Amino acid sequence: MKTDIQIAQESELLPIKDIAEKLSLSEDSYDQYGKYKAKIKLNALNDLSDDEDGKLILVTAINPTPAGEGKSTVTIGLGDALRKIGKNAMIALREPSLGPVMGVKGGATGGGRSQVLPMEDINLHFTGDMHAITTANNALSALIDNHIHQGNELNIDPRRIIWKRVVDLNDRALRHVTIGLGGPMQGVPREDGFDITVASEIMAILCLATDLDDLKKRLSNIIIGYTYTREPVTVGDLRVEGALALLLKEALNPNLVQTIYHTPALIHGGPFANIAHGCNSVIATKTALKMADYVVTEAGFGADLGGEKFMDIKVPNLGKTPDAVVIVATIRALKMHGGVPKNELTVENVDALRAGFANLQKHIENMQLYNVPVIVAINEFVSDTDKETAYLFELCEQLRVPVSVSQGWEKGAEGVTDLAEKVVETINTMESRYTPLYHSGSGIEQKLEAIVTKIYGGKDVSLSQKAKKQVKEFQKYGWDRLPVCMAKTQYSLSDDPHRLGRPTDFTISIREFVPKLGAGFIVALTGDVMTMPGLPKEPAANKMNVDSQGNATGLF
Amino acid sequence: MKTDIQIAQESELLPIKDIAEKLSLSEDSYDQYGKYKAKIKLNALNDLSDDEDGKLILVTAINPTPAGEGKSTVTIGLGDALRKIGKNAMIALREPSLGPVMGVKGGATGGGRSQVLPMEDINLHFTGDMHAITTANNALSALIDNHIHQGNELNIDPRRIIWKRVVDLNDRALRHVTIGLGGPMQGVPREDGFDITVASEIMAILCLATDLDDLKKRLSNIIIGYTYTREPVTVGDLRVEGALALLLKEALNPNLVQTIYHTPALIHGGPFANIAHGCNSVIATKTALKMADYVVTEAGFGADLGGEKFMDIKVPNLGKTPDAVVIVATIRALKMHGGVPKNELTVENVDALRAGFANLQKHIENMQLYNVPVIVAINEFVSDTDKETAYLFELCEQLRVPVSVSQGWEKGAEGVTDLAEKVVETINTMESRYTPLYHSGSGIEQKLEAIVTKIYGGKDVSLSQKAKKQVKEFQKYGWDRLPVCMAKTQYSLSDDPHRLGRPTDFTISIREFVPKLGAGFIVALTGDVMTMPGLPKEPAANKMNVDSQGNATGLF
Repeated sequence: MKTDIQIAQESELLPIKDIAEKLSLSEDSYDQYGKYKAKIKLNALNDLSDDEDGKLILVTAINPTPAGEGKSTVTIGLGDALRKIGKNAMIALREPSLGPVMGVKGGATGGGRSQVLPMEDINLHFTGDMHAITTANNALSALIDNHIHQGNELNIDPRRIIWKRVVDLNDRALRHVTIGLGGPMQGVPREDGFDITVASEIMAILCLATDLDDLKKRLSNIIIGYTYTREPVTVGDLRVEGALALLLKEALNPNLVQTIYHTPALIHGGPFANIAHGCNSVIATKTALKMADYVVTEAGFGADLGGEKFMDIKVPNLGKTPDAVVIVATIRALKMHGGVPKNELTVENVDALRAGFANLQKHIENMQLYNVPVIVAINEFVSDTDKETAYLFELCEQLRVPVSVSQGWEKGAEGVTDLAEKVVETINTMESRYTPLYHSGSGIEQKLEAIVTKIYGGKDVSLSQKAKKQVKEFQKYGWDRLPVCMAKTQYSLSDDPHRLGRPTDFTISIREFVPKLGAGFIVALTGDVMTMPGLPKEPAANKMNVDSQGNATGLF
Repeated sequence: MKTDIQIAQESELLPIKDIAEKLSLSEDSYDQYGKYKAKIKLNALNDLSDDEDGKLILVTAINPTPAGEGKSTVTIGLGDALRKIGKNAMIALREPSLGPVMGVKGGATGGGRSQVLPMEDINLHFTGDMHAITTANNALSALIDNHIHQGNELNIDPRRIIWKRVVDLNDRALRHVTIGLGGPMQGVPREDGFDITVASEIMAILCLATDLDDLKKRLSNIIIGYTYTREPVTVGDLRVEGALALLLKEALNPNLVQTIYHTPALIHGGPFANIAHGCNSVIATKTALKMADYVVTEAGFGADLGGEKFMDIKVPNLGKTPDAVVIVATIRALKMHGGVPKNELTVENVDALRAGFANLQKHIENMQLYNVPVIVAINEFVSDTDKETAYLFELCEQLRVPVSVSQGWEKGAEGVTDLAEKVVETINTMESRYTPLYHSGSGIEQKLEAIVTKIYGGKDVSLSQKAKKQVKEFQKYGWDRLPVCMAKTQYSLSDDPHRLGRPTDFTISIREFVPKLGAGFIVALTGDVMTMPGLPKEPAANKMNVDSQGNATGLF
């Protein structure tokens, strides 16, 4: 069987200027990065601002398991299939982070015959957006520490700096560090830590900003820490938002690539959904909506994380609501949610499927809470039996939810036309009447309660002493009006990664909040979710290589 | 008076594909990065391998002072002027580091009418080479710490890891850090530190490698530290050279840009000359030599640092010796070397010029030691008086060294034609009979003595106890056969930045060696030279900005 990278390398790509031409982009409105990547300039979006928006399809999923779900594969396949059935469709995805690429995943650009290309470039440095974000984030850290070292005019308390450094790698040894050691010439000693770049507030800002002015305003609103008298200190106080915006000016332009079937895809911004808001950029989604009649986009991990955040954080910034939501599940993964261990997934097990279906059902109910039409996509695996598939169809039909088997991995566009037709039919026949989960005017605790009880299906929320104190502080500054961005394990609806299926009667514990005023939300840290992953015993990096001609191997 | 960035933004650039076409590069042999930057693929270099090499002109300088020398400005002006007098010339420069750009310099792409463009891009992220190097460097660190955390099969002593992390920023607070804090799940605690990216061994490797295979071999030779039984551990032992090479595969391709006069310039690799080897990449210089009859390149800081390292480290890897060396001086800077404080430099002072000339004379003698023809370029400032200029000419002529006034900043190509003609005449009439300073077979202490007594003009070398122990250890492994790369202040021929002019009777103290087996040299750390700079009280970043149309300001 061919690997993803083999299929990718055998695919014939069109020059990106041909793709851009098909989108009616003039040569002045994009910059090529090599022959197969381009950045669309923001003036192109301005030129399109009077055009009507296309239909927006959000792809999300059940809680992921080690069995694999293939959300990106379905998203890409659906985009290809919509074109195959004659629709003018585009795809809008997130950029992969090098951390997981070199850690466990080896690549994050779909799979089989449903891939975005050139996969090596997209998975490695792509057009440098991640690096620009890393640099802007760490330049701010260097400027903060330098400010303190050079006299600390703003009276910043080095013990109360909340701005952390980042690297776009899985590097657990950097989670907790002490810096500024070595004597008076080496800065002021303090505790610090590194997050992975995709968790940086600057990543969230890049994904939510609508133009360069908005970017700069958001950067200036970032809270970096507090003074000795406990007043918040912003980037605006340091007067470096201009330098940070300058470092990000190219990164703000969305990246254009193509699928194996030459479907145009915008890949831009890449926050994780377990520790950040989990959606691609507002600018890219807006651009795609202007250029296509159907835009397929995805939100990270399960619908409890990326899906909820798409609805409650991205939609208000996007100014457009989804016309349909596709929830991806696999029979293997549902069986795991039903209690089957990984090594027994190839054995037919309808009982386990029924039990595990509870997870899918909860995500269906959740997305329906927002009053948007829901469709289920079963991403087919070779081990699926006819009986299992038929039973899963029955379960979905009992809920009156359209369901389709997606075979994009093996068959590409052709394998997803049924799903594409069902999506189009749903959009044509069912109205999307998006309703937000909570009102922005409600307090932090009310928002948490809405998310935990309505979306996660939990009993209640418990706040640590620190979190309680923070709620009061945030009220004082009026920050409690902001949406809440949950940092929670992706593996369970609860904050315990081992509780699969549809757990009930659980409490979500909030250990700490992080105010992200530039992004415009409050992060709530639950359980022991970490904003910097670690590498496994055998990192994917160990298998990566490049030959003397520059051909990549080991990117799966 | 217009600023550099204003002049740059008013200049009309040719599309980079026109520049590539003039160099007879086929469309397949380069990748565009936007309209005005390209990366030349290595197969283009292979295709040219039978062509004859052009003439190589090395531009170096006196010891820099706060008065400014303008080495890059002269290098660029000379390239433009050579074309103006009808020669097929190219320029090969280093890439700027964001550290100094955001710290004190604000930009590093020449000045006035002698600039490489687009200066904003080149000074910021350019084509991402620095970021690729940072990422490969830090991926190695993460893989080392993960190896130890996951059982430490190689028995690496966490107290004896010499591989440091890097950021491409001036960030003094990261010089000395402790990592892996927070308990058993957060890695193994140890001391670490961050260097600036340009000091990374991976930067040196990128600049000295001849192709992807050589790159991979060099990466695998990197010593990352020692085992508990004091045996060296290499990247090859960790088996991750493939992943690191994969991260660097695009960065290895030289970058093509143009000057204001559309002279093609390759800007590739950027090690500092005070803490690393200070020359642009071997691949870029080789490529330029195949494509042009005259190639102008520069080496960092004074001839004691970049010049010496060009001759003793780069030349053996390049397989080509310089046909002429241009030493840049300004009358202002020479007056500072002669004892005049910065605020009195505009006052005519022939005596101080005579005294300060000793610094220039030493650098002339040094370059002549290598048996290559030397030319002096006086980079003109408005404050220079006729009497001072005439006197400096006299002093140079007494040494029988051709001398020319260079007015590239104000007049561009036209202002440097006299220098260009003198360089061509020198190359046509004087033979370059390059002789290395020392034989590679000699030991570390012999090499140090040659550099210190012959180049720096010092009395002798003193080794710390640690350095003495290291010499013995390196002998055991045969590493003493490698060239030595001095890490020394750029401001003085000695290791004391305050001793200007031509100091004598001084000792150079070596506090420590760092074996860089991938780069193929031993770094000798002198005085208190630092491999991570700090930011000044008012960083250049404070003045940087971008308007809503994406136009940069504050890059000087």
